[in-house]
Amino acid sequence: MQRAAIGVDLGGTNLRFGLVREDEKIISRRRTGTMAAEGVEIVLERLTSGIQTLAMKAESTGLEVAGIGIGVPGIISVRDGIVRLSPNLPGWQDVPLRSRLSESFQYPVYVENDANAYALGEYWFGAGKGAKSMVCITLGTGVGGGIILDGHVWRGADGMAGEVGHITVNPDGPLCPCGNRGCLERYSSATAVMEMAAQAASGSGKTALKTLLKSGLLTPEAIANAAKKGDREAVRIYSEAGKYLGIAVADLIDLLNMECIVIGGGMSGAWELIIGPLKEEVQARAFKIPAGRCRILRGRLKDDAGILGAAGLALKTNP
Amino acid sequence: MQRAAIGVDLGGTNLRFGLVREDEKIISRRRTGTMAAEGVEIVLERLTSGIQTLAMKAESTGLEVAGIGIGVPGIISVRDGIVRLSPNLPGWQDVPLRSRLSESFQYPVYVENDANAYALGEYWFGAGKGAKSMVCITLGTGVGGGIILDGHVWRGADGMAGEVGHITVNPDGPLCPCGNRGCLERYSSATAVMEMAAQAASGSGKTALKTLLKSGLLTPEAIANAAKKGDREAVRIYSEAGKYLGIAVADLIDLLNMECIVIGGGMSGAWELIIGPLKEEVQARAFKIPAGRCRILRGRLKDDAGILGAAGLALKTNP
Repeated sequence: MQRAAIGVDLGGTNLRFGLVREDEKIISRRRTGTMAAEGVEIVLERLTSGIQTLAMKAESTGLEVAGIGIGVPGIISVRDGIVRLSPNLPGWQDVPLRSRLSESFQYPVYVENDANAYALGEYWFGAGKGAKSMVCITLGTGVGGGIILDGHVWRGADGMAGEVGHITVNPDGPLCPCGNRGCLERYSSATAVMEMAAQAASGSGKTALKTLLKSGLLTPEAIANAAKKGDREAVRIYSEAGKYLGIAVADLIDLLNMECIVIGGGMSGAWELIIGPLKEEVQARAFKIPAGRCRILRGRLKDDAGILGAAGLALKTNP
Repeated sequence: MQRAAIGVDLGGTNLRFGLVREDEKIISRRRTGTMAAEGVEIVLERLTSGIQTLAMKAESTGLEVAGIGIGVPGIISVRDGIVRLSPNLPGWQDVPLRSRLSESFQYPVYVENDANAYALGEYWFGAGKGAKSMVCITLGTGVGGGIILDGHVWRGADGMAGEVGHITVNPDGPLCPCGNRGCLERYSSATAVMEMAAQAASGSGKTALKTLLKSGLLTPEAIANAAKKGDREAVRIYSEAGKYLGIAVADLIDLLNMECIVIGGGMSGAWELIIGPLKEEVQARAFKIPAGRCRILRGRLKDDAGILGAAGLALKTNP
């Protein structure tokens, strides 16, 4: 009987499920709203129902379910499967997610921080396949990170390690909601790119960003398209994003000397715009040997990374 | 029979040996010049002779020698005991240190990077005792580092991890010999403090540093003493050193969420001058939970950290 696992990406907005076969194929998917504002019990119901659907699918397809893996934003106590705190999920404080799900399912349940699940997805099944040590950086609304050393996620003493987005890349830079100044997230997230674009659009220079802003069409994708068409302000904005990302990547290389760094998340769609400035900084700043060692790769799994990593927790742990 | 190990700190200038008993006492020491400029064979002879002396001491004291540990600056292949490259030791390229010493001694030989040996010393026997995860930062001529995660040194793919001194703390800061700009080492090393002091002394302001410079008495200690007596320029310089160290420490806390950070090396003598500005930055920049978790401690072992860490490799590995 072929094995499979159910991987879940529990986001603040969307709940996404995948039935993942051992050969790394997602053979069935479900997607629904999280309805996080409705509180813990409603989310748990929606979660249980989605898992139930895929478990039945597995049974009807003749697949043995090895377990359920769930990526959750926030602070997770991985060992006991408890969600300690989740800023994106109202009311989720000390929710014993594993034991709650074990009331409905007999399969082993693995709970992991969502950025770590994403990193594990790319590590096991995506761009990082074959590497021993990897840092994954996700460029989305914010900038997230996951550190994998010798096959294990480094979670730290409180399960809070990997906050790559809050490395200080410019000590006197703009204020970050986290309280720090000049965090990487203030330069290389979608939010930061949007802010830089809005600022450029309200300046005196000629730029296509003005039209985009006025017509309400200013998105990271639209800014990237403007850059690809040669708009100087748009190019400069993505260069800034790449440059500061490069400073953080150089720090990581000198600190961790890892085999590869994978850059995922929505913003990695603008890869050609950021990779040049990024590599320039790495070359100028990091030590030659570890910089030469470290492959800098674009994430391959996109939105599936979280589902695959979560499923992998069951597939890889339970042989 | 009580066990002991011989720990060696092989520096560019000094060769220091200690016979370390299992109860963590250094019961005998030797110190000699490395004579690094004389080449590999001369250094090996001096190394062998120093170890021989302590091995005889162990025998005469009725101690069983569990092994020999050696901390060496540079890139070390720990698994096979080979010194790949050492910028401070001319000619040391691919020197099979373990097998060379095994020609003269029957004890197991452990070779480790010197910053890692220092970190292990503080971790096993010093300020970091009892912690699971620790980063050690040494403030000396340069700024070194060692990362210990769950009891193991994280060495990275090329044995080059832990270069805390070359984190970029100011992207447009002064050029570093490593090629980067604004490295931590350019603010918080003895070299940086001396340079900042020389610059202040040649300025127009009133400062005791002028007299120190003229009389050839400008040292990090003298600058620290001037600061303790209230000299504003001297205070400012150490505040800068502490501030930028704080930025790097905040980065490490957000990235690694480790239990403690130990700050050693000669410059840690000015602890009261740097710890305030350092903690201010950490409080302003790092996430609350991991920052609250992380104890920031002054190293306790000073010059003995390297010897103790090296000896610990034999005492802890060989039960």
